[in-house]
Amino acid sequence: MASEHTAKAFDSDLQELTRLVAEMGGLAERMITESVDALVRRDVELGKRVVATDVEIDRLQHLIEERAVLTIARRQPMAIDLREIVGAMRVATDLERIGDLAKNMGKRVAALENDFQPLKLMRGLEHMTDLVQSQVKSVLDAYAAHDLPAAMAVWKGDEEVDAICTSLFRELLTYMMEDPRNISFCIHLMFCAKNIERIGDHATNIAETVFYMIEGQQMLDKRPKGDMTTFATTVPNT
Amino acid sequence: MASEHTAKAFDSDLQELTRLVAEMGGLAERMITESVDALVRRDVELGKRVVATDVEIDRLQHLIEERAVLTIARRQPMAIDLREIVGAMRVATDLERIGDLAKNMGKRVAALENDFQPLKLMRGLEHMTDLVQSQVKSVLDAYAAHDLPAAMAVWKGDEEVDAICTSLFRELLTYMMEDPRNISFCIHLMFCAKNIERIGDHATNIAETVFYMIEGQQMLDKRPKGDMTTFATTVPNT
Repeated sequence: MASEHTAKAFDSDLQELTRLVAEMGGLAERMITESVDALVRRDVELGKRVVATDVEIDRLQHLIEERAVLTIARRQPMAIDLREIVGAMRVATDLERIGDLAKNMGKRVAALENDFQPLKLMRGLEHMTDLVQSQVKSVLDAYAAHDLPAAMAVWKGDEEVDAICTSLFRELLTYMMEDPRNISFCIHLMFCAKNIERIGDHATNIAETVFYMIEGQQMLDKRPKGDMTTFATTVPNT
Repeated sequence: MASEHTAKAFDSDLQELTRLVAEMGGLAERMITESVDALVRRDVELGKRVVATDVEIDRLQHLIEERAVLTIARRQPMAIDLREIVGAMRVATDLERIGDLAKNMGKRVAALENDFQPLKLMRGLEHMTDLVQSQVKSVLDAYAAHDLPAAMAVWKGDEEVDAICTSLFRELLTYMMEDPRNISFCIHLMFCAKNIERIGDHATNIAETVFYMIEGQQMLDKRPKGDMTTFATTVPNT
């Protein structure tokens, strides 16, 4: 960057981008909590509000992309400054996907018709959500603070979420086999559990973006994969 | 862009980007076909090859993003030229997601253990895949040719895919209720059908990107939504 003026202008652009990402992150976190609350409490109105919030998340993503691109074109940042901008765009893409997944759960609330409400399953879902929620929060804090060790802790912690998801799938399958009237309800919960697990995957993507911003290269190491949900449904074959 | 030199350099950068997107599109199309072939023929090895191809898709996405950002920083394109670069990045993001969804289907092949192979269902899945495949092909052609009417045709055509998905869900649910031994198999197929439907959604995203590149603004009109799969599973409540 040529002049001090350009450097200052860049800093101010970057600050604004970071602020927008934080705003988007706050919305995404709220959508996760509210969508699962809506599911557990069968609160159709809350589910609808989650669906409506997704429009705002999409708007923010487009805004971040637009601002990021204009900043790159105007300020011509190099190396680490450029990575900051690319990082903001990547995090926004993951937050947009998180919003989509929460919206999908919000939609399902209205579809849960019967009264079947197995307490243990709901607790499992809430527990998984708490974990994922705290992963998302931690990784957004790590992104804001440029804290690589904190980001890597999130990256490694995803294994636990995957393990809970697998055990939830097994349990759901048992309920379905016991009584066909539970099937449609359990399928909704399976898709929701899978959505929460995927939200966790996006938290690890953000951790990888933090790594890229700080280290200047993509992470090559593959994430420890505890996800067995593609296999779990074949286990109880009785 | 200041000089003729810069304009030429930009054109050559853009050509390379477009070439990379086309390469990525070719891979994504192949992954869609092969993942469903692997499912229908229970070809575990083919499923594994699909999973392996995803690494290449991810590599191409990062490469496209990197090149796009460098082009913006070096050539400082304005207006339509800038939209071309942003468009390439957006299409690459959707193709990466398509690769992920196909990979997920590839993984499921190994999990289909029993011999249950309802011909009608498999034909339905193949029919849906053919439709989505042709949507992806058409929209990538429309992107390469800057053909807005062709992109809009894809955008509108997604309704049919959603309708087939909904009817597949209903049928799967019936099989599950008839015999609990079908449940785990049918759940895999449900996730696969949902994945194919989502691939169709990414084709409509790409259509929206073509609109943005040509018209210079985001599409405001909401896509006609035929997707009722979040509701379909509650229908046969008997």
